[in-house]
Amino acid sequence: MGYWGIEMRKYSRELDCFFYPEHIAIIGASSEERSIGKQLFTNFMGTKLSKKTYPVNPFHKNVLGKKAYVSVKDIPYDIDLAIIAIPAKHVPNALQDCSDKGVKGVIIISSGFKEAGNEDLTEKMKKIIRENKTMRVVGPNCFGVLMPEIGLNTTFSVKEKSHLPKHGNLSFFSQSGALGVAILDWASTQNFGIHKFMSYGNAIDVDETDILDHMGHDKGSKVVTAYIEEVKRGRKFMETAKKVSKRKPFVVLKGGSQKATHHAISSHTGSLAGDMKVYEAVFKQTGIVHAKNMRELFSFAKILENEPIANGNRTAIITNGGGYGIVTADEFTKNNLTLAKLSSGSIKKLKQILPPAAGFGNPIDMLGGAGEKEYAFATKTALNDKNVDMIAVLVLFNTPTVDQKTVKELIKIKKTAKKPLVVLTFGSGYTQHRKDEFEKGRIITYDYPDIAARSLEALAKYSAFVKR
Amino acid sequence: MGYWGIEMRKYSRELDCFFYPEHIAIIGASSEERSIGKQLFTNFMGTKLSKKTYPVNPFHKNVLGKKAYVSVKDIPYDIDLAIIAIPAKHVPNALQDCSDKGVKGVIIISSGFKEAGNEDLTEKMKKIIRENKTMRVVGPNCFGVLMPEIGLNTTFSVKEKSHLPKHGNLSFFSQSGALGVAILDWASTQNFGIHKFMSYGNAIDVDETDILDHMGHDKGSKVVTAYIEEVKRGRKFMETAKKVSKRKPFVVLKGGSQKATHHAISSHTGSLAGDMKVYEAVFKQTGIVHAKNMRELFSFAKILENEPIANGNRTAIITNGGGYGIVTADEFTKNNLTLAKLSSGSIKKLKQILPPAAGFGNPIDMLGGAGEKEYAFATKTALNDKNVDMIAVLVLFNTPTVDQKTVKELIKIKKTAKKPLVVLTFGSGYTQHRKDEFEKGRIITYDYPDIAARSLEALAKYSAFVKR
Repeated sequence: MGYWGIEMRKYSRELDCFFYPEHIAIIGASSEERSIGKQLFTNFMGTKLSKKTYPVNPFHKNVLGKKAYVSVKDIPYDIDLAIIAIPAKHVPNALQDCSDKGVKGVIIISSGFKEAGNEDLTEKMKKIIRENKTMRVVGPNCFGVLMPEIGLNTTFSVKEKSHLPKHGNLSFFSQSGALGVAILDWASTQNFGIHKFMSYGNAIDVDETDILDHMGHDKGSKVVTAYIEEVKRGRKFMETAKKVSKRKPFVVLKGGSQKATHHAISSHTGSLAGDMKVYEAVFKQTGIVHAKNMRELFSFAKILENEPIANGNRTAIITNGGGYGIVTADEFTKNNLTLAKLSSGSIKKLKQILPPAAGFGNPIDMLGGAGEKEYAFATKTALNDKNVDMIAVLVLFNTPTVDQKTVKELIKIKKTAKKPLVVLTFGSGYTQHRKDEFEKGRIITYDYPDIAARSLEALAKYSAFVKR
Repeated sequence: MGYWGIEMRKYSRELDCFFYPEHIAIIGASSEERSIGKQLFTNFMGTKLSKKTYPVNPFHKNVLGKKAYVSVKDIPYDIDLAIIAIPAKHVPNALQDCSDKGVKGVIIISSGFKEAGNEDLTEKMKKIIRENKTMRVVGPNCFGVLMPEIGLNTTFSVKEKSHLPKHGNLSFFSQSGALGVAILDWASTQNFGIHKFMSYGNAIDVDETDILDHMGHDKGSKVVTAYIEEVKRGRKFMETAKKVSKRKPFVVLKGGSQKATHHAISSHTGSLAGDMKVYEAVFKQTGIVHAKNMRELFSFAKILENEPIANGNRTAIITNGGGYGIVTADEFTKNNLTLAKLSSGSIKKLKQILPPAAGFGNPIDMLGGAGEKEYAFATKTALNDKNVDMIAVLVLFNTPTVDQKTVKELIKIKKTAKKPLVVLTFGSGYTQHRKDEFEKGRIITYDYPDIAARSLEALAKYSAFVKR
């Protein structure tokens, strides 16, 4: 057992210093208002890490009441993690100090390197890293790490402005810092829990393959998600992705999927975007779940974390609104889902319960008079039908006959369901409350058929990869 | 001036009885708990229409305290609008009574006709309508009409469960009742205002072309939106759509876009879905804005209502987060928007204000230190650049330098802007409040780049049609 009472792994061990540090130095910690150095240090104070966090600042004796050191070398403890947030031109010297001190891991928050055309500074840092051999470096031009379980947060995001997500099972790494933190902030509103987050910026040393390997082995990370602009070590990344994907879903949003944006990427993190066709081929081969936009990234992660592996893509749609069923069926069909053909036995059963004017194809249209009894019966029938792999239950709460009882019934059924089962519903206040109840009962809900379709497709595809 | 103090039109006048009725009969009004007849009648009580609304029910002397009539023929006033909500088999007789009485418009809420295979009942009703010559009929199997401006609501939606949208400039007609009402409910949360809504179901008489013609001429309907499963009179619809589109945007979501869902449509409203390719060709020719899903339907309507016509599709992206800019540029490019090339003069100006490490291409990446000054300057520069047709301003509020001042500046600029200008931002509470401020200041905001891209593309396409 390691320092944090969390089992240490035998793989990618060198990244452990970033997630389980004991002694931490903050180079550039400052009391100056609105400065990054102050925000960074403030984010450590008030956590249980604060006692063993040391400010380094040659211009001040104290930073926010804590004794400051002139150099990291002056700190009388072994430093596991140093975070550097000082102007670019001074970073190589600070990094050299870290190397001399024997610091295990360094996060360089500072920007103004390769992405700003300062190749010489980048080369200096690379030389220091090469010569040290064991010290690992994340960044520069990044936000560092976040691990809600232990209160670790090296980002300089402002607490009043962005919430941090709670502890959970998703891990996420992002080449872009701001986008990463904004996604975390948004995720905090979405019933998501995060295990580990790492923003890795210009990737001067630690790159996407290192992080993927770490999170891929990490038991706390049930699903790994990433925003990537460029892959540095193509072959190694593919090998790693394939191994990880067999164990757990790996969802990727690739920035710079369009030629027209490659120039922007080179000025953002100084990397080359590459041809999207190559990436798509790699994603397919390695079982990577390919999110085409931000909305899909976490939506895919959520369904992959929450739902069982599907036996196929044959989906049953159950609805109390004909039109809603039709637009949903349209989206499902567009997104490579098959509309399940229910067995004749199932249809016979449904005919006993539903009104004669109901639709007994797929969607199963129970009509506007359906209540909890009809919903429970139709859902169970679909779950027991061998021609059905996944189930989408559509509920329009505007009718007089659907209410909380329907929510309760479906949550009860979901508890023992062995097939993926999601709910689609949309509307204002009343519907939003029912949505929250579904989510608390561990049933994923969607407002829009298109994202439900895309998510179920991702689940079906990943399921096929795992079963291959 | 007509009864409602609203100028009557000289076109499609026969539909006016549905939107501006004076005396209203509710056939099937009832006191029975949880019944559609009670809900319907209840929705009329408490509005200023209640005094001239008369229940028709042969089994009761009173309905909710109001004298009930055995037949519509017994009501001692001329009836403009009768609403029928009784079992299908009794509907032809009630309709005959309406015809005899000289009722101008009838809405048949009841279902169980063509969609349930009861062709004979449908034929009986058609005969009555043919013989009457002037009476117009909406439905059956529909929710009728809604007009917030005068409190008219013939839907049987439960008030506690679904909010009605406020009065505004969008009009909406839907073949599906439940979907239509659910969309209205959802719209009530989205800062939308509705002028007229009509759910027309099986379209035994009044069809999509009639309604489009009415809303197309109606001055209160600035944008017309529709959910359509089938078009009955193809040529006439095309002619009408083309004329309407020249005057105002007409946005359509077509249910049954996929072959696999055609069967479901025939059991839903008893109509034939037709080939989507034909529809797509029609949409293009007639300037119809084609929404591919529910999310797009109102998103397109909103941007078309709010933003000026664009000169082209060259879009400038302004951002304080590099990665957010890149995923946005990816989506824009995917959706046929051109990334604008700013003039050298604009770039020169920007270089005077933004830090040297900023990205001066498109996206214009102002970096994480940008505040209201940078946002205002970059936005004005883009507005004044002749190479820019539309502007997307991306704001990540997690940084210490962006706050309400940026919102205020952008709202001020937007007031006099002659080019489409939208904001993208996403995050939790703090960001949501800023989003609300933007929306109140009449700046449309998006969470996700994909829907922003789709909406701007729709605006650019419609603009090109209008300018053709």
